[in-house]
Amino acid sequence: MDLFAPALNRLLDEWLDEDLGRGDLTSAALRGRQGCAYWITKQQGVFCGGELVERIFSRLDPSVQIKLLVADGSRISIGQKLLELEGPAASLAAGERTALNLSMRLSGIATATAALVAELEGTHARLVDTRKTTPGLRLLEKYATRCGGGQNHRLGLDDAAMLKENHLAWCDGVKSALRVVRDSSPWPTRIIVEAETSPQATEAVIAGADGILLDEFSPEELHVLIPRLRQIASESVSRGGGQIIIEASGVETKFLKAYAEAGVDLISTSAPITRSSWLDFSMRFQALGS
Amino acid sequence: MDLFAPALNRLLDEWLDEDLGRGDLTSAALRGRQGCAYWITKQQGVFCGGELVERIFSRLDPSVQIKLLVADGSRISIGQKLLELEGPAASLAAGERTALNLSMRLSGIATATAALVAELEGTHARLVDTRKTTPGLRLLEKYATRCGGGQNHRLGLDDAAMLKENHLAWCDGVKSALRVVRDSSPWPTRIIVEAETSPQATEAVIAGADGILLDEFSPEELHVLIPRLRQIASESVSRGGGQIIIEASGVETKFLKAYAEAGVDLISTSAPITRSSWLDFSMRFQALGS
Amino acid sequence: MDLFAPALNRLLDEWLDEDLGRGDLTSAALRGRQGCAYWITKQQGVFCGGELVERIFSRLDPSVQIKLLVADGSRISIGQKLLELEGPAASLAAGERTALNLSMRLSGIATATAALVAELEGTHARLVDTRKTTPGLRLLEKYATRCGGGQNHRLGLDDAAMLKENHLAWCDGVKSALRVVRDSSPWPTRIIVEAETSPQATEAVIAGADGILLDEFSPEELHVLIPRLRQIASESVSRGGGQIIIEASGVETKFLKAYAEAGVDLISTSAPITRSSWLDFSMRFQALGS
Amino acid sequence: MDLFAPALNRLLDEWLDEDLGRGDLTSAALRGRQGCAYWITKQQGVFCGGELVERIFSRLDPSVQIKLLVADGSRISIGQKLLELEGPAASLAAGERTALNLSMRLSGIATATAALVAELEGTHARLVDTRKTTPGLRLLEKYATRCGGGQNHRLGLDDAAMLKENHLAWCDGVKSALRVVRDSSPWPTRIIVEAETSPQATEAVIAGADGILLDEFSPEELHVLIPRLRQIASESVSRGGGQIIIEASGVETKFLKAYAEAGVDLISTSAPITRSSWLDFSMRFQALGS
Amino acid sequence: MDLFAPALNRLLDEWLDEDLGRGDLTSAALRGRQGCAYWITKQQGVFCGGELVERIFSRLDPSVQIKLLVADGSRISIGQKLLELEGPAASLAAGERTALNLSMRLSGIATATAALVAELEGTHARLVDTRKTTPGLRLLEKYATRCGGGQNHRLGLDDAAMLKENHLAWCDGVKSALRVVRDSSPWPTRIIVEAETSPQATEAVIAGADGILLDEFSPEELHVLIPRLRQIASESVSRGGGQIIIEASGVETKFLKAYAEAGVDLISTSAPITRSSWLDFSMRFQALGS
Amino acid sequence: MDLFAPALNRLLDEWLDEDLGRGDLTSAALRGRQGCAYWITKQQGVFCGGELVERIFSRLDPSVQIKLLVADGSRISIGQKLLELEGPAASLAAGERTALNLSMRLSGIATATAALVAELEGTHARLVDTRKTTPGLRLLEKYATRCGGGQNHRLGLDDAAMLKENHLAWCDGVKSALRVVRDSSPWPTRIIVEAETSPQATEAVIAGADGILLDEFSPEELHVLIPRLRQIASESVSRGGGQIIIEASGVETKFLKAYAEAGVDLISTSAPITRSSWLDFSMRFQALGS
Repeated sequence: MDLFAPALNRLLDEWLDEDLGRGDLTSAALRGRQGCAYWITKQQGVFCGGELVERIFSRLDPSVQIKLLVADGSRISIGQKLLELEGPAASLAAGERTALNLSMRLSGIATATAALVAELEGTHARLVDTRKTTPGLRLLEKYATRCGGGQNHRLGLDDAAMLKENHLAWCDGVKSALRVVRDSSPWPTRIIVEAETSPQATEAVIAGADGILLDEFSPEELHVLIPRLRQIASESVSRGGGQIIIEASGVETKFLKAYAEAGVDLISTSAPITRSSWLDFSMRFQALGS
Repeated sequence: MDLFAPALNRLLDEWLDEDLGRGDLTSAALRGRQGCAYWITKQQGVFCGGELVERIFSRLDPSVQIKLLVADGSRISIGQKLLELEGPAASLAAGERTALNLSMRLSGIATATAALVAELEGTHARLVDTRKTTPGLRLLEKYATRCGGGQNHRLGLDDAAMLKENHLAWCDGVKSALRVVRDSSPWPTRIIVEAETSPQATEAVIAGADGILLDEFSPEELHVLIPRLRQIASESVSRGGGQIIIEASGVETKFLKAYAEAGVDLISTSAPITRSSWLDFSMRFQALGS
Repeated sequence: MDLFAPALNRLLDEWLDEDLGRGDLTSAALRGRQGCAYWITKQQGVFCGGELVERIFSRLDPSVQIKLLVADGSRISIGQKLLELEGPAASLAAGERTALNLSMRLSGIATATAALVAELEGTHARLVDTRKTTPGLRLLEKYATRCGGGQNHRLGLDDAAMLKENHLAWCDGVKSALRVVRDSSPWPTRIIVEAETSPQATEAVIAGADGILLDEFSPEELHVLIPRLRQIASESVSRGGGQIIIEASGVETKFLKAYAEAGVDLISTSAPITRSSWLDFSMRFQALGS
Repeated sequence: MDLFAPALNRLLDEWLDEDLGRGDLTSAALRGRQGCAYWITKQQGVFCGGELVERIFSRLDPSVQIKLLVADGSRISIGQKLLELEGPAASLAAGERTALNLSMRLSGIATATAALVAELEGTHARLVDTRKTTPGLRLLEKYATRCGGGQNHRLGLDDAAMLKENHLAWCDGVKSALRVVRDSSPWPTRIIVEAETSPQATEAVIAGADGILLDEFSPEELHVLIPRLRQIASESVSRGGGQIIIEASGVETKFLKAYAEAGVDLISTSAPITRSSWLDFSMRFQALGS
Repeated sequence: MDLFAPALNRLLDEWLDEDLGRGDLTSAALRGRQGCAYWITKQQGVFCGGELVERIFSRLDPSVQIKLLVADGSRISIGQKLLELEGPAASLAAGERTALNLSMRLSGIATATAALVAELEGTHARLVDTRKTTPGLRLLEKYATRCGGGQNHRLGLDDAAMLKENHLAWCDGVKSALRVVRDSSPWPTRIIVEAETSPQATEAVIAGADGILLDEFSPEELHVLIPRLRQIASESVSRGGGQIIIEASGVETKFLKAYAEAGVDLISTSAPITRSSWLDFSMRFQALGS
Repeated sequence: MDLFAPALNRLLDEWLDEDLGRGDLTSAALRGRQGCAYWITKQQGVFCGGELVERIFSRLDPSVQIKLLVADGSRISIGQKLLELEGPAASLAAGERTALNLSMRLSGIATATAALVAELEGTHARLVDTRKTTPGLRLLEKYATRCGGGQNHRLGLDDAAMLKENHLAWCDGVKSALRVVRDSSPWPTRIIVEAETSPQATEAVIAGADGILLDEFSPEELHVLIPRLRQIASESVSRGGGQIIIEASGVETKFLKAYAEAGVDLISTSAPITRSSWLDFSMRFQALGS
């Protein structure tokens, strides 16, 4: 989430317009009044989205004052106050839903991520996300992953290359596919190969893949396979003896630790994004002066 | 979801660009090849998004052929084929993730909605959604609600007016707020008042609200309150003796039926949108000819 | 007109760019100079657009100072000063035409609306606008209607449903059309049926329409028809005995009062938008210090 | 109006979205049905907008067939059929209002322009428009002027330069302003000076203006002034003896001919745009087969 | 380059987004730090783009302070400091490349233009640019031409008309083409005809062209042709004895002076835009306090 | 250059609009005529942009037929025909300049790149580009680099991280900067460190950089330094003994081979983008039938 990017402003405007449509019909009742409000959380978890909330209200009405009480990535407990707002009542009402929806969604992801990351504590493995993200929210959901202590996998089809089942089905083998992609890509591009069998994995390492995604292997299989792949990598001339990053996917979240102990570098999972609930926040309004 | 709206095309383009970024790095390996593929579901539920998938691929590459095997709103069972695709391999790969993400998210909502709707079967009450939707996906998530058998609540701040806690806090009472909003709104606008106590509800009905949202009442309280509100409404001169729509919110989903039996017209819940998991689909690739 | 909506900023920018094109060719002659100016009206009427003028100049150049002397919706008389501006001369020149064009157009609508509204004084009927608006100016022209004392009809195809001649021609009767639309629409949606004959009107009321638009009926016909429709509505079980809103259209503006006295709730007319002239304002420039 | 310009497509999309908003609520009742329709005019005048109507419907739904029966710029008489449409009923309904609004507005302008142009028949003078145009419709309203037989004045602040009252107030005289603008503008730029007195006009011709706009002069004054200005122009060394274009503005439309006979080249007026009514068209729907 | 135009802001945002993509990966390392920096030039030439640099950084982060040390159009010498920046280190890093790329490109054009303009010193002829400009940078590259002392030719296909080889090939002669374009264009439009032979040029002058572009004539040919064309123009009744602008194109830059002395008004060349190198600037960073 | 990306269409539309502005003034003279045309090159080099030209004309007018005679990346010789076009004359004229400008610019880059790449033939080193690209054309100019046989460096600030002079000035050393960036970046991100001295380079390798950019070293210095850096890399435990990519920048193009022989993997240069001339193409029109 780069707050500098003009693209973010465009997204926030779009989202505000989505809720405002042709204008808040109740704003006539609020015209001329100042209000203040605060957010509290009804659930514990990890907070995410404070700076976005700030940006949303400032896009809508620069006269709204906002005070963030909790930093992104912080643990929050039931009933905790998250932020305070003050400004024209109509502006507070107009931005409420968009800001809450975004922050509750992202905090839900951060919270779910943190729970999985905690299971990997003490192991070498890191939890990474996937490209299964809500259309339009890719960068923000990946930011929530980081707030939850996870790391991001590639951001899109263009910042790393992954050769998957379909590429293998349509090309003449992993070696040739890898060479074509390497040649046409920017030099810093890492190329990852998804493997469903040990021979596929071995072939990919020899062919010079930077990363291997081992899909739906059992921890037991990995205990055997991973040292062998690292050995091959270190001996491979074509790779300059370089290391290889090994990732497991298709992992049931309850077995995370077993996978980590099998020696993988990364465990990728979409669960915090595709299977988490929103954290429940509430915006409470106060008459000014009370 | 109006497929005619140019605005939908802009959204789909944005979402494709989000994943494509500066271009699929693996497309060089697929250039010149034709492929075919199909989708299957790994979970049972209610399907949603077929026409959108069609539109996504046709925005990307009009030469992609798509055959929908399941209509939106249909029940699907594990392993069922959902649709078939044929076209340039690079186009199939470029659109895969965006199309799957959207359809899996929407089908998850439709499925969760259908489960709740089933509980209301045989009652007068209808399940409606809320404005708690993912930023950017409001219309599509509300379309998924309909595919699951639910009905939509208002679409934004501009197609119905709801006077909530904050309006009551900031205005001089519900009566004056209602009059100001009525005067400044298009005449077909329905005005709904959120009430947290019986006196508030009664006052709102007398003041001429078109709908009352009863938040966090128990079914027992509603059994008493609702007939009284309907009676007041039918006797109210200012309303022309008109009916009133009564909605319950803050309802735990396990008590849906009890609320329905208490006589509400609508039960609003954000649960299918804020607490559902994505349905899990898979896109399988085939070499052409096999 | 919701000044909060980012969408409004985009429109204003577009309109400025339309006049500026590749840049004001005379700005080189004005570079470095400060200027001040004021607006006067050459015609009497109702003013509309002050806040928009303010917004236009602030989009163009935040250093321009503007002082509004007349509130939107106020009556203005010939020669009256409307607002004062001060800032870089090149900015004043660059925004002049766009701001004047918009405000003169909207004030013309407000003025024409006010004239018709005056004729309805003392009656129960309200004047409402239609969807006959200039492409791109829908919301602002409807705002001008309100400034002139009129009320808005629906804002678009999506905030109320109207079943018209074409729907009746293409569907299996008003009853089935009404049911389909009710089922697929958000619950607060009002459904209006356009009727050209008494039987059509009666059928629509029985079928549960929320509003009836009676097109090109004479006042005499309405004197008979309207009480009957209200009676039917109050007796209709399917409507819960609810009231019905009755609207007349196709009304020559000189007979407005006769229609109002026939008992309609609303008279809809596009005349202030399709047949009014712009109010004539002039921007006068002053050398600073003089 | 350049149908090639991608910018036009964006405008049409915007206008469709303005009416469609979140989608036509009645489209559910029309789904799956084909329809046909035609347009007739209820008033005589000059038609304008046929190709735009075609483009609007094709943006919305490429399967809609449209047959234009009348060319832009043609005279039409009451009851004349203007065009025929056939396609999905929901698409015809969704585009109806936007297409009618645009074409009725433009035809109103073309009709009003043609009436004024007729008064100039037999004279040397041409009728030109101004920059008083509806925000967002500049190019289309100017196209309507041409369809009515008028000619366009400059399209914006950037395709010709006009030095007006404010430039004279803020600069050190017309001569220096003219030189600065000439130096900083593309060489084909014509520079026009607005004059309110004879000495101003004379000074501007000597200073090398390409055109003189004589504002609020009487025909009698012009009879004397114009030959003198042309004489000065032909003798002016600095202009290379070049001709000058003389334009009158602030002309009451009933005196058009008198101004033309006073020898002006152009009479500019905003009346067809700021004071004309829309032409009244109607879209009639037919059940297919009837 | 009109800094008022909202369109310019959109371009600058697009360009920033192009480099930022999904966000500067190094910004995490800079978070919370303030920095300052300055620009120096490694080459001598003519500077261009200062106000744009200012605008770029202010779009990105309004808290960045920038002090321009050199005005656009000024000569700069090796090692000269061009501007100073101070603000959040992450913002300085995020805008660096976009700002440098733009200013280095424009300064390269200004420098190359100035060199050619110097060769025309003492002659009547002016150097003008063409429509050969980098897509997206038309206005800024033409601004750079002016900073280098050149004048602009038309800005696009719409602010002057040029009848070229293709128009002559496809129309019924220059006379009819000229009449059609004159009739359909705004009255201030200048029409230029490109001629490759003397008879073509003569015909165009007689037909009333405002300008003649003589392509790939030798200086010797022009010495004879130009006086004849001016004579014909001054005698032409249809032109009102008006002057004609004569432009030479297809001129090798080393022969500029010979063409100027042959009596042309304008020499058009794309060389400063299509054949110049960027000027080389460097942004130097300083720790604050040093 | 990913032809699938909707973002590309938006760019092409913008560029067409930039030239078309309010519409081609000469199109009235071409209306209704069909034409054909072809492109030839007046200079030899490497062609680039054929598919883009195709896309530009199809955006403008889908009825234009285009036949590409030369593939992107092919060598072309003086006078060679590049492509043929047929369609409405007005469409050919409207797209000509935009298409030529783009293709001539890109072919200039491809040609200049190919010349440098040729000098590296027989060496291990590859030529890569930089982020010095024309604003708005980043992806297309990088595509041209590939057409000329070069490889791309990172595409923006977000697909690889480079720690430069400013990061070192503002952070607490390369080690800490590297760790922070590694932690906050997607795992496939490569981190490159720019070094201006041998100790800096050594430190960066030890700290775990994936690539080292050696700026303004002499070939002699590199002969000594590079083997040492590779040795350190292979021994570094923190890197897992992985290889390092070594890049030289600040290289005068005449010494390319010497640098290659000093053992660098990559030589980065902006010269083909910042110092190349456009290749000169011409579009020749033919009357149909001739």
